[in-house]
Amino acid sequence: MASNAGKNPNDLSRRQLFLGGAVAGVGAVAAVAADHALNAAPMAPGAAAPLNGTVTIPFHGAHQSGIDSPPTAHATFIALDLREGIGREELQAMMRLLSDDAARLAQGVNPLADTEPELSLVPARLTITFGFGPRLVDRAGTDRAPRSWLRPLPAFKVDRLEQAWSDGDLLLQVSSDDPLTVAHATRMLLKDARRFATVRWTQKGFRRAHGSEATGTTMRNLFGQIDGTTNPKLGTADLESVVWIDDKSWLAGGTSMVMRRIDMNVDKWDRLDRPGRELAVGRRLDNGAPLTGTREQDEPDFNHTTTVGFPTIPEFSHIRRARSDATHERIFRRSYNYDDAPSDPSMISNTGLVFISFQADIDTQFVPIQRRLDDLDLLNEWTTPVGSAVFAIPPGCEKGGYIGETLLA
Amino acid sequence: MASNAGKNPNDLSRRQLFLGGAVAGVGAVAAVAADHALNAAPMAPGAAAPLNGTVTIPFHGAHQSGIDSPPTAHATFIALDLREGIGREELQAMMRLLSDDAARLAQGVNPLADTEPELSLVPARLTITFGFGPRLVDRAGTDRAPRSWLRPLPAFKVDRLEQAWSDGDLLLQVSSDDPLTVAHATRMLLKDARRFATVRWTQKGFRRAHGSEATGTTMRNLFGQIDGTTNPKLGTADLESVVWIDDKSWLAGGTSMVMRRIDMNVDKWDRLDRPGRELAVGRRLDNGAPLTGTREQDEPDFNHTTTVGFPTIPEFSHIRRARSDATHERIFRRSYNYDDAPSDPSMISNTGLVFISFQADIDTQFVPIQRRLDDLDLLNEWTTPVGSAVFAIPPGCEKGGYIGETLLA
Ligand code: HEM
Ligand code: HEM
Repeated sequence: MASNAGKNPNDLSRRQLFLGGAVAGVGAVAAVAADHALNAAPMAPGAAAPLNGTVTIPFHGAHQSGIDSPPTAHATFIALDLREGIGREELQAMMRLLSDDAARLAQGVNPLADTEPELSLVPARLTITFGFGPRLVDRAGTDRAPRSWLRPLPAFKVDRLEQAWSDGDLLLQVSSDDPLTVAHATRMLLKDARRFATVRWTQKGFRRAHGSEATGTTMRNLFGQIDGTTNPKLGTADLESVVWIDDKSWLAGGTSMVMRRIDMNVDKWDRLDRPGRELAVGRRLDNGAPLTGTREQDEPDFNHTTTVGFPTIPEFSHIRRARSDATHERIFRRSYNYDDAPSDPSMISNTGLVFISFQADIDTQFVPIQRRLDDLDLLNEWTTPVGSAVFAIPPGCEKGGYIGETLLA
Repeated sequence: MASNAGKNPNDLSRRQLFLGGAVAGVGAVAAVAADHALNAAPMAPGAAAPLNGTVTIPFHGAHQSGIDSPPTAHATFIALDLREGIGREELQAMMRLLSDDAARLAQGVNPLADTEPELSLVPARLTITFGFGPRLVDRAGTDRAPRSWLRPLPAFKVDRLEQAWSDGDLLLQVSSDDPLTVAHATRMLLKDARRFATVRWTQKGFRRAHGSEATGTTMRNLFGQIDGTTNPKLGTADLESVVWIDDKSWLAGGTSMVMRRIDMNVDKWDRLDRPGRELAVGRRLDNGAPLTGTREQDEPDFNHTTTVGFPTIPEFSHIRRARSDATHERIFRRSYNYDDAPSDPSMISNTGLVFISFQADIDTQFVPIQRRLDDLDLLNEWTTPVGSAVFAIPPGCEKGGYIGETLLA
């Protein structure tokens, strides 16, 4: 959503978030620019806070939405497989249809074929993001060069991948603060996609609810860790350079997404004592500060040693292993927790992270980090990747256009 | 939670909802009575709205919490089966442990064995409600008479019940506006219950997020209907008389819960036109008004006829069939939507209602309504009960006591 966003976070938020007026009728939610924004100045005394359900994030722009806007409380990730015989023409028709649905839903306006239009009136920061898997790009049959990174990730020793949680041709990321909005939007999209594709996997993720904590609080995962501290900051040039593809290809203004479904063995984790858990990551559990600091945002000091001469942040710790000296080896993480019903009775929990990262180039940015973690990372004792997928995220589109037009048109 | 609540809704809300102060440390959330309440007077200009994450609902009182307080955005329902050999003594130990956990979690304080205590600090109106199935009451082995209604419901023609979604010995209803809070509280309880019982089924329900819509807005279900209009109102003597058991038994101050997992065939529903859908229920889809009225709260006029002489609200409509002339045939509904990943590839959606009702007596209040709906209700064309369970909901307890002590002590 940084299409027209300045480098100043206040500036960004002002332009980025729009406030839809609440209305009585169907399909009449007008999106009016307003100063209601996460980083906006405090409201005038006496002004009523607008309902979060009416807040919208524009669908159109140079980049797709749902990437560089603040994460919402809920997100559902769905991968679809194209039906036999779907080629470039059908892909065009599908993406026109889905882009139109997404643009309307994001504004709190019901899609054309919506038979429960009242369920579309509460966007609550709804964004819908599309990703293309390797096979979709093949099927497009154009000579626009596919990316070297648009293929399944290399195998890692830690992987215990299940096909049922991996790969896919078309990705939908449906993200909103309201679970009913996510359910309805998902259904609208799947109804229109049905002619073209079938569902391969569905993953439901969550973070803290809107309004539970102060805006800008870093999320906690189900190990109780503060997760997301060292991450490019929203609204900065740094994030733009990590995430957006800057070339002349069909992916200019787009990015790539890595999805890793990572099981977290919470029972085993609970048996480790608190100091052990803090050493495994290199950060404190209470406030997320590095073991060499006192506040969450303090820079870790990897050279600091204990009185007996060991590194205070161990060599095997997750943050030591995940941090690279090479400045280009950086990614933008936007993960969600999952907590599903155990799929068989022997399972005590079915808990983990829908790990999501965006980066301009998977091979040069993501893979080296994952390789280092694969070689050594104490956290691997408690985490197991069970699903994996990569998607090309096309750039955004303007009104009248559709996502994927740079590949398909 | 109407333990000490007056009949005046403002009065109720003031006493019922408490505001925990946000704190830095672990286990130190102090619950301080405050006027932050759903029906409270508007805040003084300039006063910052408290974070919803800090709002607490007291666990202790004459009744259990999570019944007569405003429904939260999320609720997880879990049924457990007792392990072999669990008798009265073990049931006492289990309920002491779980009651202590629940009381702490509801105040935003971590339970004693909590290994992720930071996840306990955001109650967001967390309530935990316990129910006893027929077999648990048997196992208690006391001579305190079980209820005639504490058994599986009679069979209904519409039922297509699956064992995997039915019955159970111990029910946990974990309800909060925050999905991470629900996940953590559920895990804490299941860890402590593990020695005594295994999970039989888990159902995750949702409504609109806190802050999405104006407080007091009736929920919509996934058919797009406003669902919950004609229901005893929170904080009234009417609700108390429908819900609470008023006798000298171990269930005095308790109630009963009926759970029906009802599949909603949204695809079939979508093929019906809008007038047809409104006739099926007897209410308008846009604002929930009865077909004989203009506003949601208007009383339906079942004698009103169309120009050609047919009842304006059809005889076969859901609200006509669900409404009884017998004044005691009333229930208090507190249902949640569900939308799960399809369990097999032939399923296009796995959507429905975790229908929940509370009533003092299942046989005289719930069963007659369900029987009428079983005989005739056009809505049956699109809905199918696939799970069913009944639980006795013991009264609340005071500090130092535990839920179930009136049966087990
Ligand atoms: C379930 C699995 C995982 C858990 C529980 C986890 C948890 C964490 C935590 C608690 C931190 C410290 C706070 C922060 O800066 O966010 C962190 C940092 C980080 N993680 Fe993970 N993580 C997981 C998987 C991964 C994976 C698969 C990758 C990439 C391949 C990754 C990359 C990173 C990076 C780049 C950092 C920042 C390191 C720095 O300080 O520079 N993590 N993670
Ligand atoms: C998926 C299944 C169901 C759906 C979608 C559904 C939907 C609705 C709707 C839209 C209304 C009108 C608004 C309102 O007053 O809440 C309603 C009313 C009602 N429903 Fe249901 N319902 C379902 C199942 C049931 C069941 C199983 C029962 C009890 C056995 C029940 C009992 C009632 C009652 C008592 C009313 C109020 C009727 C009146 O007096 O006006 N419903 N329901």
